[in-house]
This record gives sequence, C-alpha cells and structure tokens, in this order.
Amino acid sequence: MERLSRNRTFDGWLERYRHRASSLDCDMVFAIYLPDQTLNAPCHSLYWLSGLTCTDENFTQKAGALRVASELGLVLVCPDTSPRGFDMPGEHDSYDFGSGAGFYVNATQAPWSSHYRMYDYVNVELPALVDASFPVTGKRSISGHSMGGHGALISALKNPGLYSSVSAFAPISNPSQCPWGKKAFSGYLGNDTESWAAYDACALIRGELTERLPLLVDQGDADDFLDEQLKPERLQAACQASKHPLQLRLQPGYDHSYFFIASFIEDHLRFHARALNSA
Amino acid sequence: MERLSRNRTFDGWLERYRHRASSLDCDMVFAIYLPDQTLNAPCHSLYWLSGLTCTDENFTQKAGALRVASELGLVLVCPDTSPRGFDMPGEHDSYDFGSGAGFYVNATQAPWSSHYRMYDYVNVELPALVDASFPVTGKRSISGHSMGGHGALISALKNPGLYSSVSAFAPISNPSQCPWGKKAFSGYLGNDTESWAAYDACALIRGELTERLPLLVDQGDADDFLDEQLKPERLQAACQASKHPLQLRLQPGYDHSYFFIASFIEDHLRFHARALNSA
Repeated sequence: MERLSRNRTFDGWLERYRHRASSLDCDMVFAIYLPDQTLNAPCHSLYWLSGLTCTDENFTQKAGALRVASELGLVLVCPDTSPRGFDMPGEHDSYDFGSGAGFYVNATQAPWSSHYRMYDYVNVELPALVDASFPVTGKRSISGHSMGGHGALISALKNPGLYSSVSAFAPISNPSQCPWGKKAFSGYLGNDTESWAAYDACALIRGELTERLPLLVDQGDADDFLDEQLKPERLQAACQASKHPLQLRLQPGYDHSYFFIASFIEDHLRFHARALNSA
Repeated sequence: MERLSRNRTFDGWLERYRHRASSLDCDMVFAIYLPDQTLNAPCHSLYWLSGLTCTDENFTQKAGALRVASELGLVLVCPDTSPRGFDMPGEHDSYDFGSGAGFYVNATQAPWSSHYRMYDYVNVELPALVDASFPVTGKRSISGHSMGGHGALISALKNPGLYSSVSAFAPISNPSQCPWGKKAFSGYLGNDTESWAAYDACALIRGELTERLPLLVDQGDADDFLDEQLKPERLQAACQASKHPLQLRLQPGYDHSYFFIASFIEDHLRFHARALNSA
C-alpha cells in the first residue's frame, strides 16, 4: 500500500492510498480521513460510495463532510467507483457503464466478471485492509450518492452485522426497473433478471431480512433523475410492505449535485454517529 | 447578463452568470450565492478572489463557505481569475501567467493591456453590476487565496471606503519580491519596478494610507510555496512598521490546498460579518 498524498484538514489528516486489490485484480486508490481522535483511540468508520463518473475525490473535496467527521471523531473511507487501468471493449464509452460505473456488483458476465467485482471490494477486501492498517474499531456504517446510494443500501441489506446504519442521497432505489440499472445489470449480470434481485434494494427489502438497520434517505425534489432513475416511492413502498424503518426526506428545490449533498451531509454523519455509538 | 445555472444549497441559491465585461472587453462568468435572507432584505457581500488556475467554481465547490454564508446571511460573489476567450501569444502557455493568472492588476503592456484589467473588473465593474442586479446592501468585504489573497489585500488597500474588512489565505504578500509576482508584474506592468509598488501589499502598507481595515491572514506552515512565494513575514514587518492591524495565524501542518481553506473559512466569514454588521 502506497500513500499518494496527505493533507491536514480540520483537525485530522486526509490521506490517499494506492493498493493492489485482489478482488478486482488491479491497483485501486481510496481516500481515508483520520480525525485526530484516532491518535488516542480507534474510531468508528463511515464508508462513502460515490456515484457515476466519480472517483474517491469528489466526496472529500465537495461534500463538506470532513468538518463534521472531525467533530464527531468519525473515520471516513472513500473507495473509487470501479476497477481501473483496463481497456476492455466498450469500457470507457459511456458514463453509466464500465469505468466509473461499477454499480457495486460482482459481475458474472465476460469480460466484466474478471475485474468488475466492486461488491466484494467494498464489503470484504477494503474493510479488511482498513481494519488491519488504520486505527479503526471495526464498527462501520455506510452511505452513498445515486449509484453509490444503491451500493450503500444493498451492502447493508446483504451483510447483516457488518454495518451499524445506512443512509443514502438520491439512491437508485430500484435498479432492476430503471434505465441506468437495466443497462448496468444486463451488462454485468446478464439478461436473467432473477439474478438482478440480489442487487436491488427494493427486492432485498421485500425479501427475508435478519436485520433491519436505521435507514435515512434524502432526495431533492428538483433532481433531474428523480422520476426516471431514482424512484424513491418504490423504496418507500417496499419499506412499508415489509415494515423496514425508513426516514425519507424530500428536500424542496434541491437537485442531484454535491450542493445538495453538502447541504445535508451533517445530518447523515450525526445519524451514523448515533447508531455507531449506541450499539 | 445570462444565468447559466442555479443550485439550491443550504438555505439559499448558488447562481452562475455570464455577462459582457466592458473593462476586459470579453464575456465573463461569475458565481453568486444568495442566502434566503436576501428574500426579505438586502444583505452584505463578501467578494472572494481565487488563486492561480482557478475559475469561479473552485471556491463554491470546495471551501465549504456556503453553509456559513447561509447562517450569517452573507452574499458571496466569486469572479473568475482572468479574462477569457482570447488566444494571445503565450496566453495559455503557463499556469502562472495569462489565462487563469490575471493577478488582479490593470496591465499596461501590450498585448495584455487590451484585456487584462482584472483590477478594474473586480473593484469597479463587477461591484456595480452586482449592486444593480441583486439584493445587496452595497456594503462589502473581500478575501481570497494565494494570488487572490494578494488581490484582496491590494483591492482593500487601494480603495478606502469600498470594503469593510479584508482577509486572505496564504496570500502572495510581496509580489514584487517573489518569482510569481516578478513574472506577472514584468509581463503585465513592464520592467519599471516602480510601477509594481502600486500593486504590492507590502509597499502599499508601508505607504500613506487613509484607512486601516481589520486584516486577518491564515497561512499553513506546511505550504510548499511559503518561503519562496508567499512571504508572510514581509507582510508582518510592513504592518508592524506602519502600525497596520494584522491578525496573522500560522496554522501547523496545513498546506496550500482547499483543504486548508475549508478548515478556516468559517473564521473568516464570521470575521467579515462582524465588520460588516458593526460599521
């Protein structure tokens, strides 16, 4: 693991690392924010999954989260959004498939199945690396935006005991039923739509769950992707049908940008800190 | 004036406009943050001048300032860093001269003198346009980073009565005596170094001043440009020699990046709000 950079910010250090990711069979970069509280004792972590076209940098630069993480003594872990460094046919042709668009699944279809295994990377390999390398407690929560909101939801729903709480900004709630999700899932998982349900938050919530975590979702009502891609009403219906907790907040006037995320990230960090500190 | 975008963020709107700048003889883009307090009454403004290579967007996306501006009811005005849209010989060859590097002077040397008049743009044309077009009181303060910190200092020092307070992050304090400043001033102003003093904060402070504004400067002590380019000790010496107020804070571990700015921008906004609300 090679440290690429280190910036003092608020009362802590933002660091970026490159490491060999065996689950993806490539080098990956991630960012970690270590508030100074970690100098005295291990701290809990929040994993942030970014949206389409993002890297590890969008969140750390634009969300204004480090200020609050510094106050709360929360470690932030920010992975990239896809494997990198390949040149598979069509990999770089569109913003919503391939590079920058791993969709947090384990691909089963060639050629993607050899590298596009972001689900394992985010839920298994990266947490193991972080727990072994940094002053963290091993208690963690997860959040994300858009494609990363989808990733956060399915990561928490599919891994009972791994996360203490989950939240999302404008998540792709029902990817099996929207254009972004259909394109990604048919490419990575194939045309058998039954395999898609394992990575669809609404399907998972309607299935058998052994754990029901606190769930906070913020959604701007001026989001250009609201009706066609995001479909929070599907998430709400699934949660109601299976009595899954959900605090869904429709934020008037806000769009899909980081200006929206920045406006409400403090609420999310406090929500996660409460869950992490109480359990 | 054409509105390019509008994002709801915190309790306000971030808007970007394109307009014809007569002082620069080109189209320019600026950003303005309008907290909801402006819906009820005009608010005071803070002008932010960005550093080398920046546009109007770096500050609004990375500094975390909008949250505090929203709380304080402060309008933020963020101009670009140089005229745009030309292709003068050498204009785009280096990051520290020409496009993105206007240095907030009125150039006197051909070919720059026809467009590179950022001093007039920032201190005359843009304030007139903002005052005529938005719900602002006409009371304003000014701040900036690096080249923009230099711009903020000279703008305040050269325009008694125009600003209520001035602050800077890692300003180029003594441009006549550092490589960035020497390159810019010789290009824009020519080789007669006496003409440089009119745009050098240290020289201005050592000269005759009719107004001495509150001045807050933050400087990271891990800033790669500290010794060669920024020279805060020269600013401190000039202020001491002429009894100019200066709160200079050396921040341990912080570098030249927006992670540094974000860490202390709240202090600056509160500093300016106090000055704006008290006078």
